[in-house]
Amino acid sequence: MPVKFGPHLIHTSQIFFTSQFSFGLVNLKPITTGHVLVVPKRNVPRLAELTTDEVSDLFVSAQQIGKVIEREFDGTSLTVAMQDGPAAGQTVAHCHVHVIPRRFGDWKINDDIYEELDHTKIDNEERPPRTKEEMAHEAEWLRPFFGDQGVPWDGY
Amino acid sequence: MPVKFGPHLIHTSQIFFTSQFSFGLVNLKPITTGHVLVVPKRNVPRLAELTTDEVSDLFVSAQQIGKVIEREFDGTSLTVAMQDGPAAGQTVAHCHVHVIPRRFGDWKINDDIYEELDHTKIDNEERPPRTKEEMAHEAEWLRPFFGDQGVPWDGY
Repeated sequence: MPVKFGPHLIHTSQIFFTSQFSFGLVNLKPITTGHVLVVPKRNVPRLAELTTDEVSDLFVSAQQIGKVIEREFDGTSLTVAMQDGPAAGQTVAHCHVHVIPRRFGDWKINDDIYEELDHTKIDNEERPPRTKEEMAHEAEWLRPFFGDQGVPWDGY
Repeated sequence: MPVKFGPHLIHTSQIFFTSQFSFGLVNLKPITTGHVLVVPKRNVPRLAELTTDEVSDLFVSAQQIGKVIEREFDGTSLTVAMQDGPAAGQTVAHCHVHVIPRRFGDWKINDDIYEELDHTKIDNEERPPRTKEEMAHEAEWLRPFFGDQGVPWDGY
């Protein structure tokens, strides 16, 4: 079975982390280097639809991934954000957590980063999608940092 | 013992939710009505410092609080965000989750909301702090929605 992210089919080469209920996905159009997504395996739109175990697993995964992402991409902080529903800027109706390494001065106004998360920008043509090869390369590099969890998920 | 939020002493009348490791706090300077904070009881700056149990409890609490906040403040979505460290806009060095009800059109650009989270705006004088009475009133109104967890926390 293919892995789905909302309606999109994801190539397993883009997955760098797998836990019991979640997976870590490199980004087609990252707003900065190291911007990754943490996604529940079960394809539901909203946080409220996840079980307690799924919520726990999702954010413990985000914590683990954040530690590596911050260190490896030379961050000093992290933005951890969920756009939970269309009115919050969600464009893929499969709930997911953005984990983004941060450094002082990376955006002119500290939280202009979030404007970058706005779908009108993410979906436009200014930010070209990365190639499958670029994404596979990044995922392959990230996997060893996660031990047993640094494996692609093959779907249900 | 007083409840601390970073270096700040919090009046328990501002707390509307208590779980094993977390509490829910109404906001001194909300960026919109219904903008609340979910805070681990243990006063540490970064997500990485929380135990697995604390991370799970924090975000399961955020999920529960989000369901009520979205419904009661007439939202259709939620922004769930953690500014994890100073370079991510964190101003109180006690890690915490922002839970914010969202509606289409609430900000001109969908994610201008995040610029509002920028400390340069949150800490300036344009947004006057609410009174202790206003905050206590909101917390008192929210508590019954959370059953046994709708109680103030008295601190360790």
